[in-house]
Amino acid sequence: MSELTVVKIGGNVIDDPDKLNDFLDAFSNLSGKVVLVHGGGKLASDLSGELGVKTKMVNGRRITDAENLKLVTMVYAGLVNKNIVASLQARGVNAMGMCGADQDLILAEKRNHPTIDFGFVGDITKVNTLALCKQIECNSTLVIAPITHDGKGQLLNTNADTIATEVAAALSRFYKVKLVYSFEKLGVLMDANDDSSVMPVLNSEQCAQMVKDGTINTGMMPKTENAFYALSQGVEEVIIGNFVSMENNHSSGTQIIQ
Amino acid sequence: MSELTVVKIGGNVIDDPDKLNDFLDAFSNLSGKVVLVHGGGKLASDLSGELGVKTKMVNGRRITDAENLKLVTMVYAGLVNKNIVASLQARGVNAMGMCGADQDLILAEKRNHPTIDFGFVGDITKVNTLALCKQIECNSTLVIAPITHDGKGQLLNTNADTIATEVAAALSRFYKVKLVYSFEKLGVLMDANDDSSVMPVLNSEQCAQMVKDGTINTGMMPKTENAFYALSQGVEEVIIGNFVSMENNHSSGTQIIQ
Repeated sequence: MSELTVVKIGGNVIDDPDKLNDFLDAFSNLSGKVVLVHGGGKLASDLSGELGVKTKMVNGRRITDAENLKLVTMVYAGLVNKNIVASLQARGVNAMGMCGADQDLILAEKRNHPTIDFGFVGDITKVNTLALCKQIECNSTLVIAPITHDGKGQLLNTNADTIATEVAAALSRFYKVKLVYSFEKLGVLMDANDDSSVMPVLNSEQCAQMVKDGTINTGMMPKTENAFYALSQGVEEVIIGNFVSMENNHSSGTQIIQ
Repeated sequence: MSELTVVKIGGNVIDDPDKLNDFLDAFSNLSGKVVLVHGGGKLASDLSGELGVKTKMVNGRRITDAENLKLVTMVYAGLVNKNIVASLQARGVNAMGMCGADQDLILAEKRNHPTIDFGFVGDITKVNTLALCKQIECNSTLVIAPITHDGKGQLLNTNADTIATEVAAALSRFYKVKLVYSFEKLGVLMDANDDSSVMPVLNSEQCAQMVKDGTINTGMMPKTENAFYALSQGVEEVIIGNFVSMENNHSSGTQIIQ
Protein backbone atom coordinates (compact mmCIF):
# COMPACT_ATOMS: atom_id res chain seq x y z
CA MET A 1 0.00 0.00 0.00
CA SER A 2 1.26 3.48 -0.78
CA GLU A 3 1.17 6.21 1.83
CA LEU A 4 -1.35 9.03 1.92
CA THR A 5 -1.70 11.97 4.29
CA VAL A 6 -5.02 13.61 5.18
CA VAL A 7 -4.64 17.03 6.81
CA LYS A 8 -7.52 18.93 8.36
CA ILE A 9 -7.16 22.64 9.00
CA GLY A 10 -9.54 24.79 10.97
CA GLY A 11 -10.58 28.39 11.29
CA ASN A 12 -7.46 29.70 12.99
CA VAL A 13 -5.45 29.08 9.83
CA ILE A 14 -8.09 30.23 7.38
CA ASP A 15 -8.81 33.49 9.18
CA ASP A 16 -5.20 34.67 9.20
CA PRO A 17 -3.52 35.26 5.79
CA ASP A 18 -0.01 34.90 7.25
CA LYS A 19 -0.84 31.63 9.00
CA LEU A 20 -2.54 30.36 5.86
CA ASN A 21 0.56 31.17 3.79
CA ASP A 22 2.80 29.39 6.30
CA PHE A 23 0.48 26.41 6.23
CA LEU A 24 0.32 26.26 2.43
CA ASP A 25 4.13 26.53 2.22
CA ALA A 26 4.51 23.58 4.57
CA PHE A 27 1.65 21.62 2.97
CA SER A 28 3.03 22.04 -0.54
CA ASN A 29 6.33 20.53 0.63
CA LEU A 30 4.64 17.25 1.59
CA SER A 31 5.68 14.43 -0.66
CA GLY A 32 3.36 11.70 -1.83
CA LYS A 33 -0.41 11.67 -1.99
CA VAL A 34 -2.23 14.21 0.14
CA VAL A 35 -5.78 15.34 0.84
CA LEU A 36 -6.65 18.62 2.53
CA VAL A 37 -9.93 19.14 4.38
CA HIS A 38 -10.71 22.67 5.49
CA GLY A 39 -13.25 24.30 7.74
CA GLY A 40 -14.65 27.74 7.20
CA GLY A 41 -13.37 29.92 9.99
CA LYS A 42 -14.90 33.18 11.04
CA LEU A 43 -15.53 34.39 7.50
CA ALA A 44 -19.02 32.92 7.42
CA SER A 45 -19.88 34.43 10.81
CA ASP A 46 -18.42 37.80 9.80
CA LEU A 47 -20.41 37.80 6.60
CA SER A 48 -23.57 36.67 8.34
CA GLY A 49 -23.27 39.74 10.57
CA GLU A 50 -22.96 42.02 7.55
CA LEU A 51 -25.93 40.36 5.86
CA GLY A 52 -28.04 40.32 9.01
CA VAL A 53 -28.15 36.50 8.99
CA LYS A 54 -28.02 35.28 12.55
CA THR A 55 -25.59 32.53 13.53
CA LYS A 56 -27.19 30.08 15.94
CA MET A 57 -25.12 27.69 18.04
CA VAL A 58 -26.23 24.84 20.34
CA ASN A 59 -23.56 22.95 22.32
CA GLY A 60 -20.85 24.43 20.12
CA ARG A 61 -22.56 23.13 16.98
CA ARG A 62 -23.83 25.50 14.37
CA ILE A 63 -27.54 25.42 13.60
CA THR A 64 -27.87 25.77 9.86
CA ASP A 65 -31.07 27.36 8.62
CA ALA A 66 -31.63 28.00 4.89
CA GLU A 67 -29.91 31.39 4.97
CA ASN A 68 -26.94 30.04 6.88
CA LEU A 69 -26.63 27.13 4.46
CA LYS A 70 -26.39 29.60 1.56
CA LEU A 71 -23.74 31.47 3.46
CA VAL A 72 -21.55 28.47 4.32
CA THR A 73 -21.90 27.09 0.78
CA MET A 74 -20.66 30.41 -0.59
CA VAL A 75 -17.86 30.85 1.90
CA TYR A 76 -16.62 27.26 2.36
CA ALA A 77 -17.11 25.77 -1.12
CA GLY A 78 -16.56 29.08 -2.95
CA LEU A 79 -14.35 31.70 -1.36
CA VAL A 80 -12.19 29.59 0.96
CA ASN A 81 -11.93 26.50 -1.23
CA LYS A 82 -11.03 28.30 -4.47
CA ASN A 83 -8.54 30.63 -2.83
CA ILE A 84 -6.75 27.67 -1.28
CA VAL A 85 -6.78 25.88 -4.63
CA ALA A 86 -5.35 28.91 -6.48
CA SER A 87 -2.70 29.37 -3.77
CA LEU A 88 -1.65 25.72 -4.02
CA GLN A 89 -1.54 25.88 -7.82
CA ALA A 90 0.81 28.87 -7.45
CA ARG A 91 3.03 26.56 -5.36
CA GLY A 92 3.07 23.90 -8.04
CA VAL A 93 0.51 21.63 -6.35
CA ASN A 94 -2.16 20.28 -8.70
CA ALA A 95 -5.01 21.12 -6.36
CA MET A 96 -8.61 20.20 -7.09
CA GLY A 97 -11.35 21.73 -4.97
CA MET A 98 -14.38 19.60 -4.23
CA CYS A 99 -17.33 19.48 -1.91
CA GLY A 100 -19.30 16.37 -1.03
CA ALA A 101 -21.77 16.90 -3.88
CA ASP A 102 -19.07 16.83 -6.56
CA GLN A 103 -18.91 13.35 -8.07
CA ASP A 104 -21.22 12.28 -5.25
CA LEU A 105 -18.14 12.29 -3.02
CA ILE A 106 -19.83 12.44 0.39
CA LEU A 107 -23.45 11.53 0.98
CA ALA A 108 -25.14 12.68 4.16
CA GLU A 109 -28.58 12.82 5.71
CA LYS A 110 -30.17 15.74 7.48
CA ARG A 111 -29.47 15.26 11.17
CA ASN A 112 -32.35 13.59 12.96
CA HIS A 113 -32.03 14.68 16.60
CA PRO A 114 -34.75 14.00 19.19
CA THR A 115 -34.79 17.49 20.69
CA ILE A 116 -32.73 19.89 18.56
CA ASP A 117 -33.50 20.83 14.98
CA PHE A 118 -30.03 21.36 13.55
CA GLY A 119 -31.48 22.52 10.22
CA PHE A 120 -29.41 21.70 7.16
CA VAL A 121 -26.68 19.86 9.03
CA GLY A 122 -25.62 16.59 7.42
CA ASP A 123 -24.43 13.40 9.08
CA ILE A 124 -22.30 11.36 6.71
CA THR A 125 -23.84 8.12 5.44
CA LYS A 126 -21.37 7.20 2.69
CA VAL A 127 -18.01 8.21 1.28
CA ASN A 128 -17.57 7.45 -2.41
CA THR A 129 -14.15 5.84 -2.08
CA LEU A 130 -13.90 5.00 -5.77
CA ALA A 131 -14.42 8.64 -6.84
CA LEU A 132 -11.90 9.76 -4.21
CA CYS A 133 -9.29 7.25 -5.37
CA LYS A 134 -9.79 8.13 -9.04
CA GLN A 135 -9.04 11.78 -8.36
CA ILE A 136 -6.07 10.93 -6.16
CA GLU A 137 -4.64 8.53 -8.75
CA CYS A 138 -4.92 11.34 -11.33
CA ASN A 139 -2.33 13.11 -9.12
CA SER A 140 -4.82 15.62 -7.85
CA THR A 141 -4.37 17.04 -4.39
CA LEU A 142 -7.97 17.13 -3.23
CA VAL A 143 -9.05 20.18 -1.28
CA ILE A 144 -12.36 19.29 0.34
CA ALA A 145 -14.86 21.86 1.61
CA PRO A 146 -17.18 20.75 4.44
CA ILE A 147 -20.37 20.76 2.40
CA THR A 148 -22.11 17.45 1.65
CA HIS A 149 -25.38 16.50 -0.06
CA ASP A 150 -28.26 14.11 0.45
CA GLY A 151 -28.40 12.79 -3.12
CA LYS A 152 -31.81 14.39 -3.57
CA GLY A 153 -30.55 17.85 -4.45
CA GLN A 154 -30.08 19.21 -0.95
CA LEU A 155 -26.69 20.54 0.13
CA LEU A 156 -25.84 20.03 3.81
CA ASN A 157 -23.35 21.57 6.22
CA THR A 158 -21.05 18.95 7.74
CA ASN A 159 -18.35 19.28 10.38
CA ALA A 160 -14.89 19.37 8.76
CA ASP A 161 -13.26 17.16 11.42
CA THR A 162 -15.87 14.52 10.70
CA ILE A 163 -15.27 14.78 6.96
CA ALA A 164 -11.51 14.38 7.44
CA THR A 165 -12.15 11.36 9.66
CA GLU A 166 -14.54 9.60 7.29
CA VAL A 167 -12.40 10.36 4.24
CA ALA A 168 -9.30 9.01 6.00
CA ALA A 169 -11.24 5.93 7.12
CA ALA A 170 -12.54 5.25 3.60
CA LEU A 171 -9.09 5.67 2.05
CA SER A 172 -7.57 3.24 4.58
CA ARG A 173 -8.90 0.40 2.45
CA PHE A 174 -6.45 1.37 -0.28
CA TYR A 175 -3.69 3.41 1.35
CA LYS A 176 -1.60 3.54 4.49
CA VAL A 177 -3.21 6.71 5.84
CA LYS A 178 -1.77 9.29 8.21
CA LEU A 179 -4.41 11.71 9.52
CA VAL A 180 -3.43 15.05 11.03
CA TYR A 181 -5.96 17.27 12.79
CA SER A 182 -4.11 20.57 12.69
CA PHE A 183 -5.12 23.34 15.06
CA GLU A 184 -3.63 26.31 16.90
CA LYS A 185 -2.11 24.36 19.83
CA LEU A 186 0.88 22.04 19.55
CA GLY A 187 -1.15 19.01 20.65
CA VAL A 188 -3.43 17.72 23.40
CA LEU A 189 -2.44 19.56 26.57
CA MET A 190 -2.16 18.00 30.01
CA ASP A 191 -2.81 21.45 31.46
CA ALA A 192 -5.10 23.66 29.40
CA ASN A 193 -3.30 26.75 30.78
CA ASP A 194 0.16 25.54 29.81
CA ASP A 195 0.77 25.41 26.06
CA SER A 196 4.01 23.50 26.61
CA SER A 197 2.28 20.60 28.38
CA VAL A 198 1.76 18.68 25.12
CA MET A 199 1.19 14.95 25.56
CA PRO A 200 3.39 13.06 23.08
CA VAL A 201 0.96 10.14 23.11
CA LEU A 202 -2.67 9.79 24.18
CA ASN A 203 -4.44 6.46 24.56
CA SER A 204 -8.15 5.84 25.04
CA GLU A 205 -7.82 5.12 28.76
CA GLN A 206 -5.95 8.36 29.44
CA CYS A 207 -8.42 10.21 27.26
CA ALA A 208 -11.44 8.86 29.18
CA GLN A 209 -9.82 9.97 32.43
CA MET A 210 -9.04 13.44 31.06
CA VAL A 211 -12.61 13.85 29.85
CA LYS A 212 -13.83 12.80 33.27
CA ASP A 213 -11.64 15.29 35.14
CA GLY A 214 -12.38 18.06 32.64
CA THR A 215 -8.84 18.38 31.21
CA ILE A 216 -10.25 17.55 27.79
CA ASN A 217 -13.06 20.03 27.31
CA THR A 218 -16.01 20.27 24.95
CA GLY A 219 -13.87 21.90 22.26
CA MET A 220 -11.30 19.09 22.14
CA MET A 221 -13.68 16.19 22.85
CA PRO A 222 -15.13 15.79 19.30
CA LYS A 223 -11.55 15.81 17.95
CA THR A 224 -10.39 13.00 20.23
CA GLU A 225 -13.59 11.05 19.54
CA ASN A 226 -12.96 11.39 15.80
CA ALA A 227 -9.32 10.41 16.29
CA PHE A 228 -10.14 7.14 18.10
CA TYR A 229 -12.85 6.37 15.58
CA ALA A 230 -10.35 6.87 12.72
CA LEU A 231 -7.94 4.38 14.34
CA SER A 232 -10.76 1.87 14.77
CA GLN A 233 -11.47 2.18 11.04
CA GLY A 234 -7.95 1.27 10.00
CA VAL A 235 -6.25 4.65 9.77
CA GLU A 236 -2.57 3.91 10.36
CA GLU A 237 -1.51 6.99 12.28
CA VAL A 238 -3.49 9.83 13.86
CA ILE A 239 -1.96 13.06 15.15
CA ILE A 240 -3.56 16.05 16.85
CA GLY A 241 -1.18 18.99 16.61
CA ASN A 242 0.03 21.97 14.67
CA PHE A 243 0.92 20.99 11.13
CA VAL A 244 3.31 23.87 10.42
CA SER A 245 5.18 23.33 13.65
CA MET A 246 5.34 19.60 12.94
CA GLU A 247 6.68 20.12 9.41
CA ASN A 248 9.31 22.51 10.74
CA ASN A 249 10.36 19.89 13.32
CA HIS A 250 9.48 22.17 16.21
CA SER A 251 6.94 19.73 17.64
CA SER A 252 5.53 16.29 16.96
CA GLY A 253 1.95 16.83 18.14
CA THR A 254 0.04 14.23 20.10
CA GLN A 255 -0.09 10.77 18.62
CA ILE A 256 -3.39 9.06 19.32
CA ILE A 257 -3.15 5.35 20.04
CA GLN A 258 -5.76 2.78 21.01
CA MET B 1 -14.13 11.21 -32.70
CA SER B 2 -16.92 10.92 -30.16
CA GLU B 3 -19.47 13.67 -29.77
CA LEU B 4 -19.51 16.16 -26.93
CA THR B 5 -21.93 18.98 -26.13
CA VAL B 6 -20.96 22.19 -24.35
CA VAL B 7 -23.94 24.15 -23.01
CA LYS B 8 -23.65 27.65 -21.59
CA ILE B 9 -26.48 29.02 -19.46
CA GLY B 10 -26.86 32.56 -18.29
CA GLY B 11 -28.47 34.52 -15.54
CA ASN B 12 -32.07 34.18 -16.72
CA VAL B 13 -31.98 30.45 -15.94
CA ILE B 14 -30.00 30.72 -12.71
CA ASP B 15 -32.19 33.45 -11.23
CA ASP B 16 -35.46 31.55 -11.64
CA PRO B 17 -35.80 28.22 -9.72
CA ASP B 18 -38.56 26.95 -12.09
CA LYS B 19 -36.53 27.74 -15.19
CA LEU B 20 -33.44 26.18 -13.61
CA ASN B 21 -35.40 23.00 -12.84
CA ASP B 22 -36.71 22.83 -16.41
CA PHE B 23 -33.21 23.36 -17.71
CA LEU B 24 -31.68 20.69 -15.46
CA ASP B 25 -34.42 18.22 -16.45
CA ALA B 26 -33.65 18.78 -20.13
CA PHE B 27 -29.89 18.83 -19.58
CA SER B 28 -29.89 15.58 -17.62
CA ASN B 29 -31.63 13.89 -20.56
CA LEU B 30 -28.73 14.63 -22.90
CA SER B 31 -26.91 11.52 -23.93
CA GLY B 32 -23.17 11.32 -24.37
CA LYS B 33 -20.48 13.56 -22.99
CA VAL B 34 -21.54 17.01 -21.84
CA VAL B 35 -20.01 20.08 -20.22
CA LEU B 36 -22.06 22.82 -18.59
CA VAL B 37 -20.73 26.37 -18.20
CA HIS B 38 -22.79 28.71 -16.07
CA GLY B 39 -22.85 32.43 -15.39
CA GLY B 40 -23.83 33.95 -12.12
CA GLY B 41 -27.07 35.79 -12.67
CA LYS B 42 -28.40 38.50 -10.45
CA LEU B 43 -27.50 36.72 -7.21
CA ALA B 44 -24.11 38.41 -7.04
CA SER B 45 -25.62 41.85 -7.69
CA ASP B 46 -28.41 41.22 -5.17
CA LEU B 47 -25.93 40.18 -2.55
CA SER B 48 -23.59 43.07 -3.33
CA GLY B 49 -26.49 45.42 -2.57
CA GLU B 50 -27.10 43.76 0.78
CA LEU B 51 -23.41 43.90 1.64
CA GLY B 52 -23.01 47.46 0.43
CA VAL B 53 -20.53 46.37 -2.25
CA LYS B 54 -21.08 48.49 -5.35
CA THR B 55 -21.41 46.82 -8.74
CA LYS B 56 -19.59 48.82 -11.39
CA MET B 57 -20.26 48.31 -15.10
CA VAL B 58 -18.49 49.78 -18.13
CA ASN B 59 -19.83 48.95 -21.62
CA GLY B 60 -21.92 46.12 -20.18
CA ARG B 61 -18.83 44.56 -18.61
CA ARG B 62 -18.54 44.19 -14.88
CA ILE B 63 -15.61 45.94 -13.19
CA THR B 64 -14.31 43.56 -10.56
CA ASP B 65 -12.64 45.16 -7.57
CA ALA B 66 -11.36 43.04 -4.67
CA GLU B 67 -14.71 43.04 -2.88
CA ASN B 68 -16.60 42.12 -6.04
CA LEU B 69 -14.14 39.32 -6.75
CA LYS B 70 -14.85 37.84 -3.31
CA LEU B 71 -18.54 38.11 -4.04
CA VAL B 72 -18.48 36.43 -7.46
CA THR B 73 -16.14 33.70 -6.19
CA MET B 74 -18.62 32.95 -3.40
CA VAL B 75 -21.71 33.11 -5.57
CA TYR B 76 -20.48 31.58 -8.85
CA ALA B 77 -17.99 28.94 -7.63
CA GLY B 78 -19.82 28.28 -4.35
CA LEU B 79 -23.56 28.83 -4.20
CA VAL B 80 -24.54 28.49 -7.86
CA ASN B 81 -22.03 25.83 -8.83
CA LYS B 82 -22.65 23.49 -5.90
CA ASN B 83 -26.43 23.79 -6.08
CA ILE B 84 -26.36 22.89 -9.77
CA VAL B 85 -24.04 19.96 -9.01
CA ALA B 86 -26.31 18.65 -6.21
CA SER B 87 -29.38 19.06 -8.44
CA LEU B 88 -27.72 17.13 -11.26
CA GLN B 89 -26.60 14.38 -8.88
CA ALA B 90 -30.24 14.07 -7.79
CA ARG B 91 -31.07 13.49 -11.47
CA GLY B 92 -28.48 10.71 -11.78
CA VAL B 93 -25.86 12.86 -13.53
CA ASN B 94 -22.34 12.44 -12.15
CA ALA B 95 -21.69 16.17 -11.97
CA MET B 96 -18.36 17.63 -10.96
CA GLY B 97 -18.14 21.32 -10.20
CA MET B 98 -14.95 23.11 -11.12
CA CYS B 99 -13.62 26.60 -11.60
CA GLY B 100 -10.60 27.55 -13.67
CA ALA B 101 -8.21 27.20 -10.72
CA ASP B 102 -9.13 23.55 -10.07
CA GLN B 103 -6.54 21.33 -11.71
CA ASP B 104 -5.22 24.49 -13.38
CA LEU B 105 -8.14 24.14 -15.79
CA ILE B 106 -8.25 27.69 -17.16
CA LEU B 107 -5.35 30.12 -16.91
CA ALA B 108 -6.00 33.81 -17.44
CA GLU B 109 -4.23 37.11 -17.10
CA LYS B 110 -5.55 40.28 -15.53
CA ARG B 111 -7.03 42.34 -18.34
CA ASN B 112 -4.61 44.92 -19.64
CA HIS B 113 -6.77 47.66 -21.17
CA PRO B 114 -5.32 51.01 -22.28
CA THR B 115 -8.01 53.17 -20.69
CA ILE B 116 -10.23 51.09 -18.38
CA ASP B 117 -9.04 49.28 -15.27
CA PHE B 118 -11.31 46.24 -15.22
CA GLY B 119 -9.88 45.11 -11.87
CA PHE B 120 -9.74 41.37 -11.31
CA VAL B 121 -11.12 40.44 -14.72
CA GLY B 122 -9.26 37.64 -16.44
CA ASP B 123 -8.64 37.11 -20.15
CA ILE B 124 -8.03 33.45 -20.90
CA THR B 125 -4.49 32.53 -21.92
CA LYS B 126 -4.66 28.72 -21.79
CA VAL B 127 -7.16 25.92 -21.37
CA ASN B 128 -5.72 22.76 -19.81
CA THR B 129 -7.19 20.36 -22.36
CA LEU B 130 -5.58 17.30 -20.81
CA ALA B 131 -7.14 17.95 -17.39
CA LEU B 132 -10.51 18.61 -19.04
CA CYS B 133 -10.35 15.38 -21.05
CA LYS B 134 -9.28 13.31 -18.02
CA GLN B 135 -12.34 14.43 -16.07
CA ILE B 136 -14.64 13.89 -19.04
CA GLU B 137 -13.24 10.42 -19.69
CA CYS B 138 -13.90 9.59 -16.02
CA ASN B 139 -17.57 10.08 -16.97
CA SER B 140 -17.86 13.32 -15.09
CA THR B 141 -20.25 15.95 -16.32
CA LEU B 142 -18.21 19.07 -15.71
CA VAL B 143 -20.05 22.07 -14.34
CA ILE B 144 -17.74 25.05 -14.81
CA ALA B 145 -18.04 28.30 -12.87
CA PRO B 146 -16.72 31.45 -14.57
CA ILE B 147 -13.78 32.00 -12.23
CA THR B 148 -10.24 31.54 -13.55
CA HIS B 149 -6.78 32.07 -12.06
CA ASP B 150 -3.44 33.54 -13.09
CA GLY B 151 -1.29 30.66 -11.83
CA LYS B 152 0.25 32.97 -9.23
CA GLY B 153 -2.50 32.58 -6.65
CA GLN B 154 -4.89 35.21 -7.96
CA LEU B 155 -8.46 34.26 -8.83
CA LEU B 156 -10.02 36.22 -11.71
CA ASN B 157 -13.55 36.85 -12.94
CA THR B 158 -14.03 35.71 -16.53
CA ASN B 159 -17.04 36.00 -18.83
CA ALA B 160 -18.94 32.69 -18.97
CA ASP B 161 -19.62 32.91 -22.75
CA THR B 162 -15.88 33.23 -23.30
CA ILE B 163 -15.17 30.25 -21.05
CA ALA B 164 -17.70 28.12 -22.93
CA THR B 165 -16.12 29.20 -26.22
CA GLU B 166 -12.53 28.47 -25.22
CA VAL B 167 -13.46 25.16 -23.56
CA ALA B 168 -15.37 24.07 -26.68
CA ALA B 169 -12.47 25.16 -28.88
CA ALA B 170 -9.93 23.25 -26.78
CA LEU B 171 -12.06 20.10 -26.73
CA SER B 172 -12.47 20.22 -30.53
CA ARG B 173 -9.01 18.68 -30.83
CA PHE B 174 -10.38 15.45 -29.33
CA TYR B 175 -14.15 15.53 -29.80
CA LYS B 176 -16.78 16.51 -32.34
CA VAL B 177 -18.12 19.44 -30.32
CA LYS B 178 -21.56 21.02 -30.39
CA LEU B 179 -21.70 24.34 -28.56
CA VAL B 180 -25.00 25.82 -27.41
CA TYR B 181 -25.24 29.35 -26.03
CA SER B 182 -28.57 29.10 -24.23
CA PHE B 183 -30.42 32.29 -23.34
CA GLU B 184 -33.98 33.54 -22.84
CA LYS B 185 -34.83 34.10 -26.54
CA LEU B 186 -35.33 31.32 -29.08
CA GLY B 187 -32.40 32.47 -31.19
CA VAL B 188 -30.95 35.48 -33.00
CA LEU B 189 -33.89 37.70 -33.95
CA MET B 190 -34.31 39.50 -37.25
CA ASP B 191 -36.53 42.00 -35.45
CA ALA B 192 -35.61 42.64 -31.82
CA ASN B 193 -39.27 43.44 -31.07
CA ASP B 194 -40.59 40.19 -32.55
CA ASP B 195 -39.65 37.08 -30.56
CA SER B 196 -40.89 34.86 -33.38
CA SER B 197 -38.47 36.32 -35.93
CA VAL B 198 -35.77 33.76 -35.16
CA MET B 199 -33.20 33.28 -37.89
CA PRO B 200 -32.66 29.55 -38.50
CA VAL B 201 -29.15 30.21 -39.77
CA LEU B 202 -26.78 33.15 -39.43
CA ASN B 203 -23.59 33.53 -41.42
CA SER B 204 -20.78 36.03 -40.87
CA GLU B 205 -21.85 38.25 -43.77
CA GLN B 206 -25.43 38.55 -42.50
CA CYS B 207 -24.10 39.11 -39.00
CA ALA B 208 -21.82 41.96 -40.10
CA GLN B 209 -24.76 43.60 -41.85
CA MET B 210 -27.01 43.19 -38.79
CA VAL B 211 -24.36 44.69 -36.53
CA LYS B 212 -24.04 47.61 -38.97
CA ASP B 213 -27.77 48.33 -39.05
CA GLY B 214 -28.13 47.84 -35.29
CA THR B 215 -30.32 44.69 -35.41
CA ILE B 216 -27.61 42.88 -33.45
CA ASN B 217 -27.04 45.06 -30.42
CA THR B 218 -24.32 45.29 -27.80
CA GLY B 219 -25.93 42.51 -25.73
CA MET B 220 -25.89 39.95 -28.57
CA MET B 221 -22.67 41.06 -30.23
CA PRO B 222 -20.18 39.32 -27.86
CA LYS B 223 -22.21 36.12 -28.26
CA THR B 224 -22.05 36.15 -32.06
CA GLU B 225 -18.36 37.08 -31.94
CA ASN B 226 -17.72 34.12 -29.64
CA ALA B 227 -19.81 31.88 -31.90
CA PHE B 228 -17.81 32.69 -35.05
CA TYR B 229 -14.56 32.37 -33.14
CA ALA B 230 -15.63 28.91 -31.91
CA LEU B 231 -16.30 27.80 -35.50
CA SER B 232 -12.91 29.12 -36.59
CA GLN B 233 -11.32 26.99 -33.87
CA GLY B 234 -12.84 23.76 -35.12
CA VAL B 235 -16.08 23.54 -33.12
CA GLU B 236 -18.37 21.43 -35.28
CA GLU B 237 -21.72 23.07 -34.61
CA VAL B 238 -22.64 26.31 -32.85
CA ILE B 239 -26.19 27.25 -31.85
CA ILE B 240 -27.55 30.37 -30.17
CA GLY B 241 -30.99 29.58 -28.76
CA ASN B 242 -33.03 28.34 -25.85
CA PHE B 243 -31.79 24.95 -24.73
CA VAL B 244 -35.03 23.80 -23.05
CA SER B 245 -37.12 24.78 -26.05
CA MET B 246 -34.64 23.03 -28.35
CA GLU B 247 -34.66 19.83 -26.29
CA ASN B 248 -38.48 19.85 -26.31
CA ASN B 249 -38.43 20.23 -30.10
CA HIS B 250 -40.25 23.57 -29.91
CA SER B 251 -37.46 25.44 -31.65
CA SER B 252 -34.07 24.82 -33.20
CA GLY B 253 -32.34 28.08 -32.31
CA THR B 254 -30.04 29.89 -34.71
CA GLN B 255 -27.27 27.86 -36.23
CA ILE B 256 -24.14 29.91 -36.74
CA ILE B 257 -22.21 29.16 -39.93
CA GLN B 258 -19.11 30.71 -41.47
